[in-house]
Amino acid sequence: MKKAYLDNAATTPVDPRVIETMLPYFREHYGNPVSFHEWGERTSDAIEAAREQVASLINVQPGEIIFTSCGTESNNLAIKGLANSRISKGKHLIISAIEHFSVLHPIRALEKAGFEITYIPVDEYGFVNPETVAHNLRPDTILVSIMHANNEVGTIQSTEDIARVVKGSGAIFHTDAVATAGTIPVDVQKLGVDALSLAGNQFYGPQGVGVLWLRRNIGVDPLLEGGIQESDIRSGTHNVPGIVGLGKAAELAQQEMEQRINQLIVLRDRLIQGVLDSIEHAILTGHLQKRLPGHASFCIKFIEGEAMLAYLGSEGIAAASGSACTAKYLKSSHVLQAMGIPAVTAQGSLLFTLGAENTQEDVDLLLNAFPPIVKRLRDMSPLYAKYLKTGEES
Amino acid sequence: MKKAYLDNAATTPVDPRVIETMLPYFREHYGNPVSFHEWGERTSDAIEAAREQVASLINVQPGEIIFTSCGTESNNLAIKGLANSRISKGKHLIISAIEHFSVLHPIRALEKAGFEITYIPVDEYGFVNPETVAHNLRPDTILVSIMHANNEVGTIQSTEDIARVVKGSGAIFHTDAVATAGTIPVDVQKLGVDALSLAGNQFYGPQGVGVLWLRRNIGVDPLLEGGIQESDIRSGTHNVPGIVGLGKAAELAQQEMEQRINQLIVLRDRLIQGVLDSIEHAILTGHLQKRLPGHASFCIKFIEGEAMLAYLGSEGIAAASGSACTAKYLKSSHVLQAMGIPAVTAQGSLLFTLGAENTQEDVDLLLNAFPPIVKRLRDMSPLYAKYLKTGEES
Repeated sequence: MKKAYLDNAATTPVDPRVIETMLPYFREHYGNPVSFHEWGERTSDAIEAAREQVASLINVQPGEIIFTSCGTESNNLAIKGLANSRISKGKHLIISAIEHFSVLHPIRALEKAGFEITYIPVDEYGFVNPETVAHNLRPDTILVSIMHANNEVGTIQSTEDIARVVKGSGAIFHTDAVATAGTIPVDVQKLGVDALSLAGNQFYGPQGVGVLWLRRNIGVDPLLEGGIQESDIRSGTHNVPGIVGLGKAAELAQQEMEQRINQLIVLRDRLIQGVLDSIEHAILTGHLQKRLPGHASFCIKFIEGEAMLAYLGSEGIAAASGSACTAKYLKSSHVLQAMGIPAVTAQGSLLFTLGAENTQEDVDLLLNAFPPIVKRLRDMSPLYAKYLKTGEES
Repeated sequence: MKKAYLDNAATTPVDPRVIETMLPYFREHYGNPVSFHEWGERTSDAIEAAREQVASLINVQPGEIIFTSCGTESNNLAIKGLANSRISKGKHLIISAIEHFSVLHPIRALEKAGFEITYIPVDEYGFVNPETVAHNLRPDTILVSIMHANNEVGTIQSTEDIARVVKGSGAIFHTDAVATAGTIPVDVQKLGVDALSLAGNQFYGPQGVGVLWLRRNIGVDPLLEGGIQESDIRSGTHNVPGIVGLGKAAELAQQEMEQRINQLIVLRDRLIQGVLDSIEHAILTGHLQKRLPGHASFCIKFIEGEAMLAYLGSEGIAAASGSACTAKYLKSSHVLQAMGIPAVTAQGSLLFTLGAENTQEDVDLLLNAFPPIVKRLRDMSPLYAKYLKTGEES
């Protein structure tokens, strides 16, 4: 049976060249990088080389790269660590209404702890208006965190424009770039942000390693304390093979990005057009152009995402209904809600994310399998029956 | 040139059988375990199997295992998470004076935040007296954390006896078992603790993965928030290959523990006896019998640990001077200080930790190389010159 993995936003397969680079660090070069001997020096050199590779990808200084265990840790460290270290300057934070849970949940924890949060709304495409950010900046605003691109609807934010209004306000500007770094160009100097999160498993690197980049001289309270690793900001024995793999993945992403993007856009547009052409009552969520190159997200009216996932799965197709982190709960998405999509429509959320290993065949497998699945589910749908009778959508 | 890695406490090489088990999870089985499709189910099954392997190693229920990114994260989560979730019951904590920095530093952060800490002293071998713990328990004591074995001096604590006095007091008893789990028998039901930290890179598993075990129904405030992973206690995309590798390492440790221990003890005792026989003014730190099977720690008077490490390194021998986490700073050890060892003696701290791959040849390499190194350094030592002249040790 042919299969198609169209859930690259949840995690990507690891590039074979990345695995090859990691392998010697499991048992040939296995010292602890903080140890004072040849074994330690070799792994210390390896993580410094990886630091340079990651720094080059996002155009920063290697010394500003902090290795963490995942994107979620990077976001938690950024939100909690930057807020807590700036408490004497103020307790007001700004985020968008469509942040990933790894930003949103730490923010809620801070809110409970007495911080004041402004949630910036988004338009129907998921865009934050930089003017709205400007209007909400206050003298006691210590941190603004607005994601570079949204993982559920693929919308790429005008981060430079938001950075321009934050600059000079005294607030730190953090962006969650987990969905973009390694996938589209992320030049921190052009973006104008002060802090940025990324994760290796989004661009063919291994799971278990992420990065928080912090502009030099920005202090942050550590989350994990103990050793001396990562300039005292992130303690814990380094995941050497993981870090080496992330470095290699960053290098490959930088070298091959243009080609990957071009290939993804062709497949993505074929997928989007195919779905919209063949499925009635399907709407694209997010923006048609300003979206991640491999990202196709829809709401299919009158049926539920979970049911579509099950049927697609039985045809060998992996997709998602919203963020991977909520997949098993299938709650109504806060992102779609913020974009003004009615809850009943949002139930039919479906997300296909293409990666470097996907082919036109994968897209065609989906485009052949999907319409009959939708038909079968609609035939069972009381909502659809009601719509046919009354013309009402809920 | 022959080489000997005698720094297994800093990190162990990964067992080839562990690597083999991990490999398919990089790009054959690469789904996100929380995803709703075949790829996700396969990796979800894999981490549940690993959870069972780890649970079996320490004799607990699989559902009580929380996967983290390292021992430091496990200790931070235990200390901060358990203390913060119990703040309504009290703000008094008890730890020993010889805890690892990944316990000690979070404790200091809590102390700054208004918690009251009692540091239990240790005797000359590094033992905590359970009676002293009993005397310091108060109605508002919410957490006791005393490590199972000390990483710097190898002393294995009478954890059962401490558990017995904590039991019924209302306090949670956490133990940092990073130095013991996977190395010596750790049966949580026999130990009688409520929470336990372990790390895979201490027993031939990969770096980048650790565990916090928490007895059922014990609440804990999460450190990393966001997704739904690990029962909401530890969010972040799972490090699937790492977790699978830790599971395999746990299985192998359980199967081969007796044999490994027997082999290590023979090598360790040969090493200890050899050093004490051939080096004047060398003292063993910790206890001669009640110590980790691969652990040999000394203070070599009149010379500095750093210099010995450098010379040993040039002979192809990896050792440590205290904990790996402080190796590059070489501060005087709080552990040796707590054991009453004078600062001037503690400067000569040296630690050899044997692992499953070490042989008698490795030990003999050290025993041949070490005495001339000590002689050379003593010849340059003003402290030694003074001692020869006056008989004074400092």
